[in-house]
Amino acid sequence: MKKSLVALAALAVAGVASAQSSVTLFGIVDASISGTTTKFADGSKASSTRLDNSGYNSSRLGFRGTEDLGGGLAASFWLEAGLSNDAGGAGSGSVTGQLFNRRSTVSLSGGFGEIRLGRDYKPTFWNNTVFDPFGTNGQGTNVLQNVVGTTTGVGALAFDSDNVRQSNTVGYFLPPNLGGFYGQVQYGFDEKTKYTDGLPPAGADTRSGDYVGGRIGYANGPLDVALSAGQGTIGSSYYAGYNDENFTWNAGISWDFGFMKLFGEYGSYELKRTYDPSYLADVKRTAWGGLVGATFPVGPGLIRASYSYARLEDFPVANDPSAQKFALGYVHNLSKRTALYATVAYVDNKNGMPLGLNGAVTAGTPDSSYGYDFGIRHSF
Amino acid sequence: MKKSLVALAALAVAGVASAQSSVTLFGIVDASISGTTTKFADGSKASSTRLDNSGYNSSRLGFRGTEDLGGGLAASFWLEAGLSNDAGGAGSGSVTGQLFNRRSTVSLSGGFGEIRLGRDYKPTFWNNTVFDPFGTNGQGTNVLQNVVGTTTGVGALAFDSDNVRQSNTVGYFLPPNLGGFYGQVQYGFDEKTKYTDGLPPAGADTRSGDYVGGRIGYANGPLDVALSAGQGTIGSSYYAGYNDENFTWNAGISWDFGFMKLFGEYGSYELKRTYDPSYLADVKRTAWGGLVGATFPVGPGLIRASYSYARLEDFPVANDPSAQKFALGYVHNLSKRTALYATVAYVDNKNGMPLGLNGAVTAGTPDSSYGYDFGIRHSF
Amino acid sequence: MKKSLVALAALAVAGVASAQSSVTLFGIVDASISGTTTKFADGSKASSTRLDNSGYNSSRLGFRGTEDLGGGLAASFWLEAGLSNDAGGAGSGSVTGQLFNRRSTVSLSGGFGEIRLGRDYKPTFWNNTVFDPFGTNGQGTNVLQNVVGTTTGVGALAFDSDNVRQSNTVGYFLPPNLGGFYGQVQYGFDEKTKYTDGLPPAGADTRSGDYVGGRIGYANGPLDVALSAGQGTIGSSYYAGYNDENFTWNAGISWDFGFMKLFGEYGSYELKRTYDPSYLADVKRTAWGGLVGATFPVGPGLIRASYSYARLEDFPVANDPSAQKFALGYVHNLSKRTALYATVAYVDNKNGMPLGLNGAVTAGTPDSSYGYDFGIRHSF
Repeated sequence: MKKSLVALAALAVAGVASAQSSVTLFGIVDASISGTTTKFADGSKASSTRLDNSGYNSSRLGFRGTEDLGGGLAASFWLEAGLSNDAGGAGSGSVTGQLFNRRSTVSLSGGFGEIRLGRDYKPTFWNNTVFDPFGTNGQGTNVLQNVVGTTTGVGALAFDSDNVRQSNTVGYFLPPNLGGFYGQVQYGFDEKTKYTDGLPPAGADTRSGDYVGGRIGYANGPLDVALSAGQGTIGSSYYAGYNDENFTWNAGISWDFGFMKLFGEYGSYELKRTYDPSYLADVKRTAWGGLVGATFPVGPGLIRASYSYARLEDFPVANDPSAQKFALGYVHNLSKRTALYATVAYVDNKNGMPLGLNGAVTAGTPDSSYGYDFGIRHSF
Repeated sequence: MKKSLVALAALAVAGVASAQSSVTLFGIVDASISGTTTKFADGSKASSTRLDNSGYNSSRLGFRGTEDLGGGLAASFWLEAGLSNDAGGAGSGSVTGQLFNRRSTVSLSGGFGEIRLGRDYKPTFWNNTVFDPFGTNGQGTNVLQNVVGTTTGVGALAFDSDNVRQSNTVGYFLPPNLGGFYGQVQYGFDEKTKYTDGLPPAGADTRSGDYVGGRIGYANGPLDVALSAGQGTIGSSYYAGYNDENFTWNAGISWDFGFMKLFGEYGSYELKRTYDPSYLADVKRTAWGGLVGATFPVGPGLIRASYSYARLEDFPVANDPSAQKFALGYVHNLSKRTALYATVAYVDNKNGMPLGLNGAVTAGTPDSSYGYDFGIRHSF
Repeated sequence: MKKSLVALAALAVAGVASAQSSVTLFGIVDASISGTTTKFADGSKASSTRLDNSGYNSSRLGFRGTEDLGGGLAASFWLEAGLSNDAGGAGSGSVTGQLFNRRSTVSLSGGFGEIRLGRDYKPTFWNNTVFDPFGTNGQGTNVLQNVVGTTTGVGALAFDSDNVRQSNTVGYFLPPNLGGFYGQVQYGFDEKTKYTDGLPPAGADTRSGDYVGGRIGYANGPLDVALSAGQGTIGSSYYAGYNDENFTWNAGISWDFGFMKLFGEYGSYELKRTYDPSYLADVKRTAWGGLVGATFPVGPGLIRASYSYARLEDFPVANDPSAQKFALGYVHNLSKRTALYATVAYVDNKNGMPLGLNGAVTAGTPDSSYGYDFGIRHSF
């Protein structure tokens, strides 16, 4: 239904002309009853039960459209807001009023590919979601994603303020039909004012927000394989004289045997604080990890399973903290648009990794965590 | 028009299949010129004139839809934002970014009834709006609602942060066609982390947000009668050792004589601060009140009239504060979607009840207030 | 496409009845790569490159509709949100949660004209946008608009917190078909509480928000000419005893020769701080300026050019600061909905005018600025 909603009315008005022109209202409302229990080193436990959102697919509400410009050219737009439908929230970006926090773009596309302007996914995000049986949602997702999103408490630095999206970008996408090859590059403007002399009159942050990344892959028959990398400045202080740059790369592969689809991914996150005046030693932090997983179609449903591992290196602790996660789930499709789902997951921490499952506490010294999602995903 | 907007396009695409499937854009824009004058004990007056919203029906913008899953099952979603259309605002919940503050749910329904997940109305809200000729909008609404919404200044405790809705809930609704019987129950998760030992490592609020409520009623022919009750924790402090729990119940009835429809409602709000360690005496506050009202259809219009009374008990003041309100209004329907309306109301305070009409000041010692709404309600 | 989106579905349902009834989803997504360089008095430079929005037309997402009430009467609504699509933002009013910051109104219209309630454009805004080849968007817009929006640093007072729109208004518009004459008046409620005695118990601001304005014009054949004026209170302090009132007026004219359209506008902004108790001398600030411009259609494109001038008077500086701007641009229409555009502009400051182009710094002593927009505008 997605692709057609308002298209019909438009067509009816436009008469014959542009069969590809359309404006579409679309969305997902996904809610789950989720519970998590974390066991601490001293044997005590902390647990919570919640009504959560986005346990299977991210809840969203969006507006998008395409206009056929003739000659193979098309213009299109995409405005997509995240939903915290358990409590009525919409949009959740770090910028106040960032309603269309998931995607906000305008594009020109044709035989040459697509040029896309605005807020969009980073190229390195796609391997994380495509090559994980649990995508990037719910308690089953790759433990490396949890680590990168929650490593406060071990070292002072966070790997990224947003591992998924970038604002103020220009992106280029290869055209489809390159025999299975696909690819994209993205450049993000930091939009900071650059001065030709002395101190900046206002604002100490001179670079954060810049970004460059890319992804290349090949999908044909049962195979899908892709590699991506990106580099950005996530913090910058003119007066303290440093820049925080992160470098991310990952590679993923999947093979569909029909009765089973296998998944594998490896990813690495590196953060470097570089002091311009060099009076302080540079600081480095690394996180890396991987995942193997599989899905099995069973009638109208899908069984999902994965094992993932993540490790922190270069942190100021005696031994490298690490964590592993086991996840198992089942999705029961009531229709193409509506599914019931259940997921269970277990995380095991080593060497002080302060990780709970989604929504669990990470203060104290969590030893292990287990949790579940039981929910409904309805798309429109 | 509401039920059909985008449905047609969907149908046209889907071909024959699912006649019940639809996605709908809907809303109300209601604006009024409203004025209020409050007379104080010393004879002075305070008055204001405003462009207000929602004087007859609450302004809103929403998206909702239903998918027929076959076999009597259906999935549906409902995302509804409040509008402050006088100044361009949308959403007004207490949580920042709570755009869909009015309702944000996903449901599965069938012969068994409906299971609904998300942010929704409390069961106890419905009697307040259904059994009041003025609903819960504008200057004419039941004075008990004004009291419960504004009792700061008399005692230190507020009855509820939100008398209308609850986030993070699971609800169950009886199916229709039970010979006129209807009913619902609702459970709200507090989502707080529970610890098996000692002090919580972070967060002092261990229970606020939990809720349980229900409503049962019977509507047949001219009669509609219903009873509802609910209990929730609205404040909680681990360190100070108390929980603030409210208990609300109400009952309403209406009888439609054709030329006239009669309304009656009684409601009670109780707040208890319970100290866990029992070293402090528990604290209790009570508000109760009732309403009698009537509507008279006159051609394309409707005359509305009501008398309501509210009283505070168990407050630390010499005499129980009370207030009564007289309200009279007329709604002139230009069409099913568009109406002009006018309401006048008068509130009389006793024993220090600090109540003004909607939008009026309540500081000082207001003796009485009168006010009017004159507006237009347009729905789509 | 705008006028029809959801209309069709409605029609199909309503059957024959109301051909004019419709609900429409509409919008614009406009993104540009923009750069600005400011040269300071000491020869140093500051520059930035950005992904900007709204360089040609303001990005927006809206919902509007009209219901035919019969007998020439119609009811309608208009909810329009601004978009900062470069970073996913929506709504940008000064009030938190003001999603529909661009317009939020409900109207009743007929042979008598239109009565409109809500948040709407000030009458004085229209001449600024209609009689400028660059409208009020991008780096080419009338330098007087830039001055009025950025005059901090010269004198302590700002001319207006919002030069474009007013909340809580009642507006009246003349009907069309008056032989080319058009006009409107607007009244804005301050909504402040007025007291009949002594000090206000709460709130020191007793008047800000009040507004009255109007516009009258004549458009026939190649000619369009209009005059507008408005007066409002933008600041008020009961305790400090002053009111800040602004008075704005402007006049514009355009003549379409076919191969070329000529534009001219003159505008004046005056701010007066009036001390009620008269123990302090009143303060006055003035800004005035004008524009001449032209557009030239060339095939599917449009060349745009303008020269504008702005001057500050009555400021506590030795010489009146002034600025002039030269702007040149080209719009290439790929279709009625989609256009590519490029604009270059140069601003020259005199006597300490602290003005940069859009997005440029104004701290220090900027001598001159130049900049460009290169973007795409897609409407739906």
